[in-house]
Amino acid sequence: MLNFTYYNPTTVYFGEGQIRALLKEIKKYGNKVLLVYGGGSIKKNGIYDEVAKIFKVNNIKFWELSGVQPNPRIQSVRDGVKICKENNIEVILAVGAGSVLDCSKVIAAGYYYEGDAWDLVIRKARVTNTLPLGTIITLAATGSEVDAGAVITNPDTNDKLALAHPAMTPKFSILDPTFTFTVPRNQTAAGTADIMSHIMETYFSSPRQASIQNRISEALLKTCIKYAPIALEEPENYEARANLMWASSNAMNGNIGAGKERKWVVHPMEHELSAYYDITHGVGLAILTPYWMEYSLNDETIDYFVEYGVNVWDLESSENKYEIAKKSIELTKDFFVSMGIPTKLSEVGIEKEKFQAMAKGAVRYGNIGSIKPLTEQDVLNIFNMAF
Amino acid sequence: MLNFTYYNPTTVYFGEGQIRALLKEIKKYGNKVLLVYGGGSIKKNGIYDEVAKIFKVNNIKFWELSGVQPNPRIQSVRDGVKICKENNIEVILAVGAGSVLDCSKVIAAGYYYEGDAWDLVIRKARVTNTLPLGTIITLAATGSEVDAGAVITNPDTNDKLALAHPAMTPKFSILDPTFTFTVPRNQTAAGTADIMSHIMETYFSSPRQASIQNRISEALLKTCIKYAPIALEEPENYEARANLMWASSNAMNGNIGAGKERKWVVHPMEHELSAYYDITHGVGLAILTPYWMEYSLNDETIDYFVEYGVNVWDLESSENKYEIAKKSIELTKDFFVSMGIPTKLSEVGIEKEKFQAMAKGAVRYGNIGSIKPLTEQDVLNIFNMAF
Repeated sequence: MLNFTYYNPTTVYFGEGQIRALLKEIKKYGNKVLLVYGGGSIKKNGIYDEVAKIFKVNNIKFWELSGVQPNPRIQSVRDGVKICKENNIEVILAVGAGSVLDCSKVIAAGYYYEGDAWDLVIRKARVTNTLPLGTIITLAATGSEVDAGAVITNPDTNDKLALAHPAMTPKFSILDPTFTFTVPRNQTAAGTADIMSHIMETYFSSPRQASIQNRISEALLKTCIKYAPIALEEPENYEARANLMWASSNAMNGNIGAGKERKWVVHPMEHELSAYYDITHGVGLAILTPYWMEYSLNDETIDYFVEYGVNVWDLESSENKYEIAKKSIELTKDFFVSMGIPTKLSEVGIEKEKFQAMAKGAVRYGNIGSIKPLTEQDVLNIFNMAF
Repeated sequence: MLNFTYYNPTTVYFGEGQIRALLKEIKKYGNKVLLVYGGGSIKKNGIYDEVAKIFKVNNIKFWELSGVQPNPRIQSVRDGVKICKENNIEVILAVGAGSVLDCSKVIAAGYYYEGDAWDLVIRKARVTNTLPLGTIITLAATGSEVDAGAVITNPDTNDKLALAHPAMTPKFSILDPTFTFTVPRNQTAAGTADIMSHIMETYFSSPRQASIQNRISEALLKTCIKYAPIALEEPENYEARANLMWASSNAMNGNIGAGKERKWVVHPMEHELSAYYDITHGVGLAILTPYWMEYSLNDETIDYFVEYGVNVWDLESSENKYEIAKKSIELTKDFFVSMGIPTKLSEVGIEKEKFQAMAKGAVRYGNIGSIKPLTEQDVLNIFNMAF
């Protein structure tokens, strides 16, 4: 186990009806709120009305930033920062999926920066302070409700980049599984793939001897494997939605990564795909993951795969190691397919001609991955395998 | 899954050499420290010298409260409060096992109370505020380094009672596995039993459908079962000590209990044993646990035991349910025995004549336990089974 510092300051209110905690939390920080949301699904399912009513009845003034897209754009961040600065906003409330939360995190940081918020994303300037942020999530996927990170896209430059700062961690997050009852089938599947990818990025990282972290990762993966099919069949199954939602947070609250290397690999590859093609993040991850596994399997990494096959997929530990490893990769792919996710990049409109540029982008900060670090050429090879 | 609020504010510095974080953390709160420790083992193993040197070199003034005993006494709390009040202490540093931490937590609360600190323990008065507390732990057992609770003994009244308040949670905790290298065999065993008991108290609680929490509990139990024997054989095995230490914190940081009932049962029974006989807490827990399991096994609770047997002890799920349940209980007992812990109360000097009084004490706040709530008579029956 590597040395680590663990600190997670988010207060989580979990369960049906926990929106009742909203007012008390908002009032800790002020009564001028920026409400950030996406394409309007929260207006259809009634969450918007609930929030607006709480604010209006209690004289909380609020401004709105709507239309935040999946793969959130830097322009939304700029718009949000402008509203905050013009109106001396005191606290931000993000209501939606990870894209809305990520956008809000960078708005919170951009408020305290004089220049263009994109400077913070490309590390031209540093985050110094943030507005307090609360969240109400409507999709189990990114874990953004309990972490310090955000991923922002700039379509002008084909950049989709991650930014993290402890101060960007939400002060509070309201997790009501019933708020995900209306999530459509394809988004439930993609969200689950995202959760599982977060766990696998960490699980397939050195050192293997971090037993607590690895056993907890297996616990979370098994929960996803059990409950995602139930949520797909019965969208209003509370237990299924609750377990997926809490798995999502547990994957990203820092616990499974504490004491392990944190060198992600599939995420930076996928960020290139969605920077160029704006595909659904979870779909890109699910397509790439089995090919990355296949590519990373060798005599040095095999024990990771054996542990994965035996502890997650219940394969017999007495089998040949490579048999177990290959079966576990096959089962991973089968699981994503069973949720209706394609297995090839060509199926989601990705073209070969951008592979070189995307491979270059994926390793812009150096080789990626832990148990088998990948060069630009390796990434290119995996893109070709997955085509 | 039940509704819950999750918040854990402790910053954990985990790993060899993490004592380097001490100065920075202490300075956040002031430069007048009460250093609390136990019987002097930290003087033998060098931790005292390390801490004292850091304080002296950096002009941190410190006062000492030493001699805090296992099953910490209210008198130590009173002594500590007196030192804090007389010297305007600004921050408390607890260095030792759970007893030292628990004592320090109540000192921290007692500082802000005019009367006798025992009033806080017996709920005659409420905790209103606390001095900030940091900890350096030297035994993997209680998880007190990341939770809000403390257990204090009053030998005059044969009371051993738990008190918890969010403000009593440590601000920071330094967890260096090498600081547990010198823990003797019997304490390593008792500490592991304590960790496992915390997990099992939560695991054998309603509802069973909290998959995340139950799978994580199994992950922690499997880690204890794997690494405790290694730590017993090789006291300086870093991985074994590290995994036990982090298991201990993960058992008590609130995560496995979030969304489940928190009605403990073996702990309140054991508190009576050590209130009357001052036995080692973990030993009392290990003796009682298998009898409590046996007593709680019935048609309504059996699925908990089957899940436990299959997922923790790798029993075949195709077997008869009662066979699996009984084997899992047997394996639990065998595991404690393999660590050198007795199986009968009579072996640790407990006498039958106190059973009635202890059973009464165990249910002083009402029936205990979740999946099978226990009355005074039930507790008495279990004491008799375990005699």
